[in-house]
Amino acid sequence: MLALGLDVGGTHVGVGVVDQQGKIIARAEMATRSDRPQSEVLDEIAKTALAAAEQAGGLAAMRGIGVGLPGVVEVDRGVLVFADNLGWHNVDIRHELQARLGDIPVYAGNDANVAALAEARAGACKGADSAVLLTLGTGLGGGIIIGGDIHTGAHFVGGEVGHMIVEVDGRQCNCGTLGCWERYASATALVLAGRAAMAEAANGAIAKAAGGDPEKVNARIVVDAAKAGDPAALAIWQEYIKYLVVGMVSLTNLLDPQVFVIGGGVSAAGEFLREATQTLLHKMLSFRDSNKPDVKLATLGNDAGIIGAAMLAHGK
Amino acid sequence: MLALGLDVGGTHVGVGVVDQQGKIIARAEMATRSDRPQSEVLDEIAKTALAAAEQAGGLAAMRGIGVGLPGVVEVDRGVLVFADNLGWHNVDIRHELQARLGDIPVYAGNDANVAALAEARAGACKGADSAVLLTLGTGLGGGIIIGGDIHTGAHFVGGEVGHMIVEVDGRQCNCGTLGCWERYASATALVLAGRAAMAEAANGAIAKAAGGDPEKVNARIVVDAAKAGDPAALAIWQEYIKYLVVGMVSLTNLLDPQVFVIGGGVSAAGEFLREATQTLLHKMLSFRDSNKPDVKLATLGNDAGIIGAAMLAHGK
Repeated sequence: MLALGLDVGGTHVGVGVVDQQGKIIARAEMATRSDRPQSEVLDEIAKTALAAAEQAGGLAAMRGIGVGLPGVVEVDRGVLVFADNLGWHNVDIRHELQARLGDIPVYAGNDANVAALAEARAGACKGADSAVLLTLGTGLGGGIIIGGDIHTGAHFVGGEVGHMIVEVDGRQCNCGTLGCWERYASATALVLAGRAAMAEAANGAIAKAAGGDPEKVNARIVVDAAKAGDPAALAIWQEYIKYLVVGMVSLTNLLDPQVFVIGGGVSAAGEFLREATQTLLHKMLSFRDSNKPDVKLATLGNDAGIIGAAMLAHGK
Repeated sequence: MLALGLDVGGTHVGVGVVDQQGKIIARAEMATRSDRPQSEVLDEIAKTALAAAEQAGGLAAMRGIGVGLPGVVEVDRGVLVFADNLGWHNVDIRHELQARLGDIPVYAGNDANVAALAEARAGACKGADSAVLLTLGTGLGGGIIIGGDIHTGAHFVGGEVGHMIVEVDGRQCNCGTLGCWERYASATALVLAGRAAMAEAANGAIAKAAGGDPEKVNARIVVDAAKAGDPAALAIWQEYIKYLVVGMVSLTNLLDPQVFVIGGGVSAAGEFLREATQTLLHKMLSFRDSNKPDVKLATLGNDAGIIGAAMLAHGK
């Protein structure tokens, strides 16, 4: 059987026809342009979904539609509660798509959560019963897999790994609390540390790579400078790894997953990131005789959103 | 049907015959005396279990035996991996009890985890699908309930809520890492803060209640002084609540449980504790529109260990 996976983002919507193994066999896409009336956006999403389906037997060949959304989703009702970067509140995605596409099953989930599901079903930790995906990007998103499925909790707001507090009274977070993990372990945190280092050392490796322009500092520049052995960049990197692993220690002590999967922009650092993370994690858990979680790099990249959304429709 | 629940502690073993509703209908107990040869202790545990069973129809009337143990347990095999305060390593509890009591199903779990199960099946959060129990005692133990059952994870070491890190490079923990939650939110943390306050204010309420003896400072003295409005004790209490709630915020963002249940020595503070905790938790989660977890006080007290162990045998 096939399923449609829709990855709805703030700027772009990707649609794929996905088989049960997680292979995308047809695609379509569109710009979100969420400044339009919501019904127009939904019309075009339905049209794009149909265009993808028609490349692979039409809607009749689909067991259902899964939708990944950039916000809080009531998964049981298929309702998007809110998504800041769409400006949408309380949108009954299931109803809206069925009104446009007919009586096909529609499922919805948070985009970071479904990406975790994709890695657990078809990616870095394929077949894992328990896993935690960490997406190191603008924020620190991710998802918790328990029993082979996404764990969202009683009010569908769980799995927000980036809002675990790692420093009481620490850095101010967008969520209103202080000291959230994503303030220390997201790509943004790495970039801010890189800019601060550049301000202190105008001739350092980071400053050179960014041509002295703070706006040009990105995660890759900091990682590359650290890989090349620049002392300031290395210090930033080691501090970054420390904070990243502190959260992973907490997650292990709470959830004891089989495996962590790291994705997002910072994961482009590859083995340099994976090896440092796993080594420090296992060292910090060394008081335990038990086996320790593996750390792996995400393998599905941007397709994780489409594949994971489709997996909502494929079911277990 | 009935089941036997065994609560094996470092100093005491409690046994109960427990019905499916979690009611204890017969009891027996013994001193652990773990300085004896292990086989002697196991012989007496089997004898004590039998003595309890014989008050309620004998072993034939029991669907199984559940054992709560103070350490890491491989729940699938029924093996105690290690328990520091028994000095036991790799004890096949299932095999040892079956060798003494015959072919009856035997289940084993961590004591704090089974106490959480007891509260979820028959106590403060009866019927909850998801819950977190926090036991505020010498350490900060507890258990995570997901899908109505204990979550232990891939290597059976999950649910260690007290070893979530709330301060990077914070206070030294027995586990070897720094900044674990239990260093700030256990009864021990409250007592240490009380002693420090007494050293600074020899005429304060805490000093008076303890007769000037640091060894006599306990959680109740600090709580009572705070309830009475002593400024130093109140400051300690507010700091304690803050650290307690920081961990609960993290747990909510990760797991989104229906309810938190607070037990252990500090929970004797009652509504004074519950109300302060729930109010601050909901305030810190106020950026979310969604419903927030309730905070309740544990209701089963010391019986939670026996009842939860029996629930392992009763199954879902």
